[in-house]
Amino acid sequence: MTQEEIITRPLRRLDPEDAQEALTRIQDVLHRQQLVSDLVHRQEAGDERAGLVESVVQRQHESEIKALLDDLHPADIAFILESLPKTERQAVWQLVGTEHDADVLLEVDDWVRESLIEAMDRQDLVAATETLDADELADLAPDLPPDVVAEVQKGLTEDERAQLIEAMGYPEDSVGAIMDFDMVRVREDTTLKAVLRYLRRMRELPDHTDQIFVVDRQGRLQGTLSLSRLLVGDLKSKVQDVLSPDYLSLSPLDSDADAARAFERYDLVSAPVVDDQGRLVGRVTISEVVDVIREDSEEQALSRAGMQEEDIFAPVGMALRNRAPWLFLNLCTAATAAFVASQFEDTVSHIVVLAFLMSIVAGIGGNSGNQTMTMIIRALAMGRITGHNVWQLVKREMTITVLVGLCGSVGAALFAWLISRSIPVALVMMAAMVCNMLVGTTIGVLVPMLRARFGKDPAMGSSVLLTFATDSLGFFIFLGLATLFLL
Amino acid sequence: MTQEEIITRPLRRLDPEDAQEALTRIQDVLHRQQLVSDLVHRQEAGDERAGLVESVVQRQHESEIKALLDDLHPADIAFILESLPKTERQAVWQLVGTEHDADVLLEVDDWVRESLIEAMDRQDLVAATETLDADELADLAPDLPPDVVAEVQKGLTEDERAQLIEAMGYPEDSVGAIMDFDMVRVREDTTLKAVLRYLRRMRELPDHTDQIFVVDRQGRLQGTLSLSRLLVGDLKSKVQDVLSPDYLSLSPLDSDADAARAFERYDLVSAPVVDDQGRLVGRVTISEVVDVIREDSEEQALSRAGMQEEDIFAPVGMALRNRAPWLFLNLCTAATAAFVASQFEDTVSHIVVLAFLMSIVAGIGGNSGNQTMTMIIRALAMGRITGHNVWQLVKREMTITVLVGLCGSVGAALFAWLISRSIPVALVMMAAMVCNMLVGTTIGVLVPMLRARFGKDPAMGSSVLLTFATDSLGFFIFLGLATLFLL
Repeated sequence: MTQEEIITRPLRRLDPEDAQEALTRIQDVLHRQQLVSDLVHRQEAGDERAGLVESVVQRQHESEIKALLDDLHPADIAFILESLPKTERQAVWQLVGTEHDADVLLEVDDWVRESLIEAMDRQDLVAATETLDADELADLAPDLPPDVVAEVQKGLTEDERAQLIEAMGYPEDSVGAIMDFDMVRVREDTTLKAVLRYLRRMRELPDHTDQIFVVDRQGRLQGTLSLSRLLVGDLKSKVQDVLSPDYLSLSPLDSDADAARAFERYDLVSAPVVDDQGRLVGRVTISEVVDVIREDSEEQALSRAGMQEEDIFAPVGMALRNRAPWLFLNLCTAATAAFVASQFEDTVSHIVVLAFLMSIVAGIGGNSGNQTMTMIIRALAMGRITGHNVWQLVKREMTITVLVGLCGSVGAALFAWLISRSIPVALVMMAAMVCNMLVGTTIGVLVPMLRARFGKDPAMGSSVLLTFATDSLGFFIFLGLATLFLL
Repeated sequence: MTQEEIITRPLRRLDPEDAQEALTRIQDVLHRQQLVSDLVHRQEAGDERAGLVESVVQRQHESEIKALLDDLHPADIAFILESLPKTERQAVWQLVGTEHDADVLLEVDDWVRESLIEAMDRQDLVAATETLDADELADLAPDLPPDVVAEVQKGLTEDERAQLIEAMGYPEDSVGAIMDFDMVRVREDTTLKAVLRYLRRMRELPDHTDQIFVVDRQGRLQGTLSLSRLLVGDLKSKVQDVLSPDYLSLSPLDSDADAARAFERYDLVSAPVVDDQGRLVGRVTISEVVDVIREDSEEQALSRAGMQEEDIFAPVGMALRNRAPWLFLNLCTAATAAFVASQFEDTVSHIVVLAFLMSIVAGIGGNSGNQTMTMIIRALAMGRITGHNVWQLVKREMTITVLVGLCGSVGAALFAWLISRSIPVALVMMAAMVCNMLVGTTIGVLVPMLRARFGKDPAMGSSVLLTFATDSLGFFIFLGLATLFLL
């Protein structure tokens, strides 16, 4: 943004609620436009007047929407586009000022970006993307038509082209994929005064510059210098004498989740990225880290329901492909459990009431195991579980389960007695429930720990395995005990 | 940290993995110490030599642990303390240098802080807390003995005491509870040169100062000035001419989750907090926001398993109180579902195989509803659901469910035929499954939306209601259809 723009444009107070209101008003306008179009199309074909009215009204509506959009931050525009179904989204996208195109494309979620790019012609795309930095271009490149990428990268400098290639080469969940190249670097033997002069010559500092990076002659990172230290420090000091006492450096191949943990723990705003020779190659900022934290937590919530990221307006076919596999998997495990239970058909046909009790045994085992599993996955993610405390943890979980199980099974036994009027049935219920809760706890501890031991994500798939075990074994234990003691 | 310390202490490269290694080594030492103690206690009582050996070894172990701790950042020390059981935690806490006491107390999770404070005497507590800022003291105050708070606040200035009282007065999940008072404020009519001179007179800037706040004569916020603009701007410019073009301001009573969303959307590092007259009263920084985001996501994961935050080393009694209510609630809903099913005892005793199939119908209904519910809760949290798109969403979810249901129910019907060899049973299975999936979808859409409409957290308790409905109605629909068509 140039100096003139700053002075001419009034200050904008940001507020996500304004964006939400703008969304509702845009939906209103689109709805009115739809009503007019419907009306016009009900007229006889070729009624020129009606067509004329429609186009006048449409222009009016478009300028209404444009006015709403013009007041908004690109991130708010991205929010609005994400909240509209595809056709309306593409219509509104045409009305977004071209100066925001690049920013909005960077801001929107992956699943929306595709539909926006689809609605742009080659020329618009080149115009929007030729202003991007190498790391930003690398983020968009997979979604852009290859000829646009080829065209745009012609405008890059040699250095930037090398950065683009580097940034595109890192795996998705690595630090390399979220780093940028907007670093201010200074040599350790300069004075603060010289650094200040150097900064003043730049037109603006990169976003989120809270510190500048200090390197030696070979470009190896020596430490960092915070802007606030630079501002309050003695101008005659050498950079090397006022380095920040602590610094964190990342490697491009570190996992982004680990980097996020480090940012959280040490309250960082930015961190340098160095290669294996210690040379400064990039920088990670808190805004990327916040996205990583949010995305990881949403991914977890979705994967627990067996889904991946899904556009609420994605075509039904896409949603089917997203959701069906999980339901099918659950159908298979439920069928297996049912098959296990059906092996006790004789027992159940003698004492029908067992059929109604067995699902309680299975369900509570699953719930109890899920509590243990949630605890363990969390402790693993925090790095709290070490060789030393595993057994202590396991003993603790078992104790808790037995105690909760004993109390709970008294309630369950009472219920069993109420609907069966048989004390032996109640006792079998009690024993089976405690046993199945222990099954749940065992799975809840073992599965995540084994997965973590073998370098896998401890959460993934654990819950299916848990339900599978507590359902099948729950039926087996309950009906097995009943067969032994009640027939 | 004073200038001398910076120069004498070597640069410290932060790395969470080092902390993890230190944890393992500290556990090793504690383990060895335990072995020695056990050995000594097996000797006859009054064996002085053994006691002597023990205390020598203990001193050696203590200095080993001290050496490990001295190298660590307070946040790493907090991590280690959080990862130890209570007695060991308190023992290690005694070995932490007193200069870190305050920082560590601020860093640790709530459930650990209590046990650390318990292990400190009054004098240590006063020493540790008298250096704190008002907002930090407000965070610790609920856990501190009242006489310590009374003692420490005597040392505060009038202003700070007012801030302390203000900070303690805001509700837990509000912006007021996470704001601090470490702001740099300047008047709009000063020049950049004067601002730089003013900053240089401060010994250091507050953490996370990426911008300073511009106020008028009455202390009302006029805008913000970023440090980087200050560094590159013309020294003769007035502050009011180089204000940042966009700014976000918060109110102390805004919810912290909303503030976090705003930080994420606009990529902020800090934001001013103003009262209802527009006067600047505080500041929120990204480090607090990151904590809010992480805590909200963990709270969600825990509450889905019916738990609250739990220390992995909390006493068993506390864990019981945390977990039992959820299991009891689930026992009640499962028992109700079983009771519903037991009303069809006649039907089941005629066709026993129904007993094994009914849990499949219930389970898949729950899984399918859970997918819908996850989508809806997420869309609600993002503010994407408005009056305009509700029906579109509902129609979409219903279509998806019917389509997935039809495919899936063919598989289920096949399984039903395999274990029953009866086509009517297979057909009833198919119909019941599709119906129950629609029940799941309806609950999955309605419950979160109604809760949100009435201003409640859409996620809370929704999953219990969902399971309850899909279990009870699943049994009812399946056995009901069977009673109508198969007897």
